[in-house]
Amino acid sequence: MILARPLTAADFAPFGDVLDAAGDPDRIINAGLCGRFHDRARLDFAAGGRAGVSIFNAVPRALPYALDLVERHPLGAQCFIPMTQHPYLVIVASAPTPDAVQAFIAAPGQAINFHRGTWHGVLTPLHAPGLFAVVDYIGEGDNLQEVTFDTPVMITAPQA
Amino acid sequence: MILARPLTAADFAPFGDVLDAAGDPDRIINAGLCGRFHDRARLDFAAGGRAGVSIFNAVPRALPYALDLVERHPLGAQCFIPMTQHPYLVIVASAPTPDAVQAFIAAPGQAINFHRGTWHGVLTPLHAPGLFAVVDYIGEGDNLQEVTFDTPVMITAPQA
Repeated sequence: MILARPLTAADFAPFGDVLDAAGDPDRIINAGLCGRFHDRARLDFAAGGRAGVSIFNAVPRALPYALDLVERHPLGAQCFIPMTQHPYLVIVASAPTPDAVQAFIAAPGQAINFHRGTWHGVLTPLHAPGLFAVVDYIGEGDNLQEVTFDTPVMITAPQA
Repeated sequence: MILARPLTAADFAPFGDVLDAAGDPDRIINAGLCGRFHDRARLDFAAGGRAGVSIFNAVPRALPYALDLVERHPLGAQCFIPMTQHPYLVIVASAPTPDAVQAFIAAPGQAINFHRGTWHGVLTPLHAPGLFAVVDYIGEGDNLQEVTFDTPVMITAPQA
């Protein structure tokens, strides 16, 4: 059983970016009424593609969660922006094997960006609606690699 | 006084895109557990720039709202993704004059993309936290044009 940890930028750095409004904004705009935390996702896309914005509506999962598949996108980064203030489960792996899996719980106000080629679990909201905007690679080529596990990795969290 | 209308894709079409999970998804992914509403924003960027993802944290506004400035971004589209389920005010204008202003109230689950060069009001959340992810042009050049109004346009809504 893997215990999901609270998502932090430092712990997530080997896998991607955490986008939030923590700390001081990079710029103050709109006559002082808006803080801009500027350009926080490393959007690395292969030539032949471009960024697009899609909406994902996913079925909420219950904990403990049985992870039996990881996937990666060789042609581009993938940024998930929650359109609710519900926490959600973020699963990554330094290799496509059960022992390399790590799990995090994203807090309200945290978006994530998986760096290009990072192994990860599919989108796993924990509450309805499981609504996210996704910025990812739109273009030519096969952008999906999947590895299934014979024995699922069980993931839980102290609270979510 | 302008009355903000509920945001619909049809009414907003001259100004940009409404991104939501309405209707049937374009694709079903993740073993049937996620609907993908694919590539819903026209992200038109000038050469010399690229898409980036930033976080905006804006002070909530009260209604009626006094609009005294519109702006536009000549170098690229700008997509606003609410990270809460609160409604927010969307202000656009077919020209940078008070009589050309229109206003909408976005419902929970609706993101918007202003097409490149569209005149619009600054980000106007109506509830705290005023937290949005913004996909816009990162690159060279002057991407901001502003026009102020001598007499503000008052905007309200029947409910928000």
